[in-house]
Amino acid sequence: MTTTATPATTTETTPGYKWVGTRPVRHDGLDKVTGRARFGADLSLPGMLVGAVLRSPHAHARIRSIDTSAAEAMDGVKAVVTGTDFPMLESEAGEGGEAAVDYRDLCRNVMARDKVLYEGHALAAAAATSRRVALAALAAIEVDYEVLPHVIDVEDAMAPDAPILHPDMITSGVDPVPDRASNISARYVYERGDLERGFAEADVIVEREFTTAPVHQGYIEPHAVVADTTEDGRAVVWCSSQGHFMVRTHTAKLLGWEASRVKVIPAEIGGGFGGKTTVYVEPVATLLSQRAGRPVRIVMDRDEVFRATGPTSGSKMRLKMGARRDGKLVAAEGWLAYQAGAFKGSPVQLGLMCILTPYDVPNFFLEGYDVVTNMPKVAAYRAPGAPMAAFASETVLDELAEQLGMDPLELRLRNAVEEGVKSVYGPKFRKIGYRETVDAIKDHPHYSAPLGPNQGRGVASGFWFNIGSNSSATVHINEDGGASVMTGSPDIGGSRASMALMAAEELGIDVYRITPIIADTESIGFTDLTGGSRVTHATGMAVIEACRKVVSDMRARAAKIWDVDVGDVEWVDGRAQHVDGDRAPLTTEDLAETSAKTGGPITATASLNARGVGVAFSTQVCDVEVDPETGAVTILRYTTAQDAGRAIHPSYVEGQMQGGVVQGIGWALNEEYIFDDRGAMENPGFLDYRMPVASDLPMIDTVVVEVPNPGHPYGVRGVGEVGIVPPMAAIANAIHGATGLRLGELPMSPVKVLAAIGSNGG
Amino acid sequence: MTTTATPATTTETTPGYKWVGTRPVRHDGLDKVTGRARFGADLSLPGMLVGAVLRSPHAHARIRSIDTSAAEAMDGVKAVVTGTDFPMLESEAGEGGEAAVDYRDLCRNVMARDKVLYEGHALAAAAATSRRVALAALAAIEVDYEVLPHVIDVEDAMAPDAPILHPDMITSGVDPVPDRASNISARYVYERGDLERGFAEADVIVEREFTTAPVHQGYIEPHAVVADTTEDGRAVVWCSSQGHFMVRTHTAKLLGWEASRVKVIPAEIGGGFGGKTTVYVEPVATLLSQRAGRPVRIVMDRDEVFRATGPTSGSKMRLKMGARRDGKLVAAEGWLAYQAGAFKGSPVQLGLMCILTPYDVPNFFLEGYDVVTNMPKVAAYRAPGAPMAAFASETVLDELAEQLGMDPLELRLRNAVEEGVKSVYGPKFRKIGYRETVDAIKDHPHYSAPLGPNQGRGVASGFWFNIGSNSSATVHINEDGGASVMTGSPDIGGSRASMALMAAEELGIDVYRITPIIADTESIGFTDLTGGSRVTHATGMAVIEACRKVVSDMRARAAKIWDVDVGDVEWVDGRAQHVDGDRAPLTTEDLAETSAKTGGPITATASLNARGVGVAFSTQVCDVEVDPETGAVTILRYTTAQDAGRAIHPSYVEGQMQGGVVQGIGWALNEEYIFDDRGAMENPGFLDYRMPVASDLPMIDTVVVEVPNPGHPYGVRGVGEVGIVPPMAAIANAIHGATGLRLGELPMSPVKVLAAIGSNGG
Repeated sequence: MTTTATPATTTETTPGYKWVGTRPVRHDGLDKVTGRARFGADLSLPGMLVGAVLRSPHAHARIRSIDTSAAEAMDGVKAVVTGTDFPMLESEAGEGGEAAVDYRDLCRNVMARDKVLYEGHALAAAAATSRRVALAALAAIEVDYEVLPHVIDVEDAMAPDAPILHPDMITSGVDPVPDRASNISARYVYERGDLERGFAEADVIVEREFTTAPVHQGYIEPHAVVADTTEDGRAVVWCSSQGHFMVRTHTAKLLGWEASRVKVIPAEIGGGFGGKTTVYVEPVATLLSQRAGRPVRIVMDRDEVFRATGPTSGSKMRLKMGARRDGKLVAAEGWLAYQAGAFKGSPVQLGLMCILTPYDVPNFFLEGYDVVTNMPKVAAYRAPGAPMAAFASETVLDELAEQLGMDPLELRLRNAVEEGVKSVYGPKFRKIGYRETVDAIKDHPHYSAPLGPNQGRGVASGFWFNIGSNSSATVHINEDGGASVMTGSPDIGGSRASMALMAAEELGIDVYRITPIIADTESIGFTDLTGGSRVTHATGMAVIEACRKVVSDMRARAAKIWDVDVGDVEWVDGRAQHVDGDRAPLTTEDLAETSAKTGGPITATASLNARGVGVAFSTQVCDVEVDPETGAVTILRYTTAQDAGRAIHPSYVEGQMQGGVVQGIGWALNEEYIFDDRGAMENPGFLDYRMPVASDLPMIDTVVVEVPNPGHPYGVRGVGEVGIVPPMAAIANAIHGATGLRLGELPMSPVKVLAAIGSNGG
Repeated sequence: MTTTATPATTTETTPGYKWVGTRPVRHDGLDKVTGRARFGADLSLPGMLVGAVLRSPHAHARIRSIDTSAAEAMDGVKAVVTGTDFPMLESEAGEGGEAAVDYRDLCRNVMARDKVLYEGHALAAAAATSRRVALAALAAIEVDYEVLPHVIDVEDAMAPDAPILHPDMITSGVDPVPDRASNISARYVYERGDLERGFAEADVIVEREFTTAPVHQGYIEPHAVVADTTEDGRAVVWCSSQGHFMVRTHTAKLLGWEASRVKVIPAEIGGGFGGKTTVYVEPVATLLSQRAGRPVRIVMDRDEVFRATGPTSGSKMRLKMGARRDGKLVAAEGWLAYQAGAFKGSPVQLGLMCILTPYDVPNFFLEGYDVVTNMPKVAAYRAPGAPMAAFASETVLDELAEQLGMDPLELRLRNAVEEGVKSVYGPKFRKIGYRETVDAIKDHPHYSAPLGPNQGRGVASGFWFNIGSNSSATVHINEDGGASVMTGSPDIGGSRASMALMAAEELGIDVYRITPIIADTESIGFTDLTGGSRVTHATGMAVIEACRKVVSDMRARAAKIWDVDVGDVEWVDGRAQHVDGDRAPLTTEDLAETSAKTGGPITATASLNARGVGVAFSTQVCDVEVDPETGAVTILRYTTAQDAGRAIHPSYVEGQMQGGVVQGIGWALNEEYIFDDRGAMENPGFLDYRMPVASDLPMIDTVVVEVPNPGHPYGVRGVGEVGIVPPMAAIANAIHGATGLRLGELPMSPVKVLAAIGSNGG
């Protein structure tokens, strides 16, 4: 079943459901449009100090000494800290299960120790009575640097003579173990079949090289925190993040505290896209507050966000693919190297796991390298690692289709994975909707619309995972029959509305009688990050489970009131009714009003580590026009189809689909980190780091495909990430359609397009 | 078992318990002593307005008209409301179960309609950009009053020619139904046996008349609220109260809203003593905020607290009791009339239910009258209705003992109720500890210590109920093995510590690894008031139940990890251990750390309407010295024994016992509402309304008697209220010991004592 985008006020219903699939105005909408919603920087406490962070001007340098005495002596300066004020943590390989974090690296990224590893690397911080004084204090800190040679480009960093960031880093995943340090932290390999025989079967082979630039998540709200410590060594931390439990864990760990000593209150979040899944200023503000004995607020400026928080990796990739005349893909060989930034941990492994995944390729060999370079440690960014990989594979596929004289969607359908096929990364797929997304684009009027001169059309597909992880939910029935639904998942993309819709469906009450709440770390059970496209699935399952407990309790109370067996009481449309129909049904209001007599208030909680996650596929089509005079690429029309499993609130599914495409367009055409000779970022502001704005974009049409995920009660799949995977390839393929050029380097900015046109003979 | 007061840092343990009965520093202690704790007036929001309330200068007047136009036109005035801006509510007799509230009266008390019924009665309110402007706006409101005759004294108000407050008030509980209105809202009767025959059996009979003055709860923190409404008609209300769910219910009701539209966040409370169990300014601030579109703060000043919030009733009582020579009480006849204030609902019925309750009296007839008068509507005050009743009965008993030549404690023991005896109000007592409290005082060195000249010793006992009602608790195990324990009960007397101790006992982890939280109305299940001595019992039971669910879950997880039957896993001292002892135990930390693999986070919630409540008894002894020159009474020594069932945190049990005595001393010796001819209060400030301060008091010694309540897992009885019941009688009896005078009128202030000495021939 597919639905196309409709106005957000529409309340069409999905067959079998009353609330799921409708489009109520989101519960937090009014607060968001009136300015009432409070974001990370919006909290002010009595006596609050302003914190600021001193950052390295050098891309790579040894810190010979830091002298903070002048800063500490200044009027109005209440605390100054450096790296040595934090405990020195070591790696805890393996601990923490699914979300393993190397605290040795994290603590050094939050505050440098012996070396600074990128321009913008934090190395001291001060809290003072005003921002002016705090900045003056930073200026008064004397740092003696020994500047070292630096390296940013991923291939340069892999060279044997490259400056080494970490003298103790030995590449893992290679045999024999190297005898000397390098910037390559790890090599990963995924392989299957016989590559040589595969290529021998091929009638056509395409081999291309690709380069992508590091790009930033570009959330509008900068990192911001207010920390307030107490004299007995506890802290309340207010901040914007993708997971306040993550902030609690990391902040406590970096300070050497027990997690229970830190309470984190989630502010509203003004965009995260993966970039707010770690900590930067939170432990710093907390330590400053402890030292000063007063609350401390730190708000990054845009410059700091760009220079010191995670972009995603730039990459170098080579990909060779072969197909038979009939379109069957027979072999693929890929080489991927991703920048990790200053500390290991690029998403290159995920890139390997996604690059071929929409297709059933019998023979492949994929290797990937995680490479540290003198730039900010990369952070997760929407489907981390997959978009650059898909830029490679989906443009190579387009070229194969061209050489085979085959429709590019047809080529994809001939190789499309489906239920029962073994994935590149191992497990067999359960019920999936990839093929349906290709069909949706193929059948869409967009795909057959006429094109004008200098215009071209491109298609591409993409794959991304969903994760499950830990979620908790608590449901209370209010005395008036309304309900509170608490979760611990920050609402980035409309999840309050989704939780309320699922609760309304289960309880059978109006969605506006449900108050969805994002509770602090002391008020709800542990909940993992809002990330990995997991919230509607996993936190939704916790909400559904808690609601089912509540309904079961209400059925039992009705049975008690009627003095009948609970098995004879059904829950229909928000009421308990007796199977014989011989009693007036009891509504939620009735049961709430009489709850004191039937056992007390009606509440339930559920916590789970969600299983049954789906996977996500998207197929997209894009029309561009290329200005042959300037090389500027205009996106004329864009349509994206995605398998949502079940769209709980279709408007926010569409919003995620559109948002992913918009970020992909920015990545494809404009965005990049530009470094000068010294390794300093030259464009750390929104004027120079050019993200797409509304006037750069057409309305992006959406086709929500619904192939229910068998692992979720309603069939939900995560929808937040996969939309960013296909755009770069789709646009590159469209530019080829318009110009005949195959561009292998992102961003495909006017100057590069113009150069390519020129070198192609204009 | 009895324990005497020990320093609060002692951590002796109770046999069978590790945490229950110890004295850890309270979890909220540091915030309270550092000033970090935030009370009702401590919240400030951007754009917040200041609200102020216009109050009647007349004790009784018809409102001919209110003209707010000049006030509304003033610069800086953002909203003005009067009674007609609120919906007109009617009585909902019977609805609401145990906490029935007459909303017709409540809405008229919060904002007068046609008449003002006491000096201080609210009749309009304004919100402005500053307090100065708000007060100027009130001054600009023109009210045309028709002043009516008023009545305050309870007997005057019962007279046939008294000014009538409510022309439609017909006395209930009398037969035949009266044909005309009066100020008597209701008559109540409790009777048993044959009064005439009873008195005929008596060898001695004492009959006395008593008068008590209205006294205020005297909490230091005035009523304070910040209300912030949203454009879609929801409100967040921050205030200090004894029950934020009560504030939600009443505020919503008085505005004609659904309760779910109001979120109430509990501030810390700086004393309540029953006086913060209803609303005054909360609905007013909310409506002003809605009208102004901005947050509004209203903070009463002390004058307003005295003039417009609930004192307890003044009373007129007559009591006649007869006893046989052997001390057996054979008959009692009582007549009680209590002021209700401007609207019906004094605690006279509770007075009847408590006046004889420590004693097994075969024949009695008790009648009580609830009488409206032109003073503030009374509110609950610690053991509402019982202290004045005990002042009567316990002084009459003292006189009976004197006439019988019997030790007054011995007289009490001969008549003491015990398990199986039918109470005055009906049900038979279960296991109770009244007799043990008398024995504790009898055996205490205080009771046999020598007295000097002008010194006297008095004893008295008291009875008070506990209530159960609705409570909810949620428990989360943190990733580090610590726990959050959330409840919805405002912490007035140390309940965070008690909840943490019970959770520590159940979970087997350190009490400081538990974070007790008072959650807002959206974050925890419905919870009734902190009142009726119920929290440690009822909310404690919810905490215990939630902890037991968590332990059961942890046992199941250990069983899963070990692949054994859950029945073979025991929970001992914070660890799961296998009955065979052949596996290393799994601690809470272990189970928390691995929870993602065993089903997700560990959480549980419990809601209940607590049954099995105990009852509370106290016996007290007091030494006074009376200055024959001035009539001043000095309290020399005071010892109080009380049955706590089981003292969870003995220091806070002792604190409640001492606090009750202190308030009783004030009521006995100094406190009273003094009205002028016009019915205006003459002493609405702490300088003139003389509450006892530390220098007025000796150290009050406590004996915690523990006769476990069979209805609670640990045997808890409520301890917060009964301590205030005996003091007035104990002090009157001590004054008799010092002077030979029987004083029947409270307060026994120097002028009255001196007058009595004089009339007695000095």
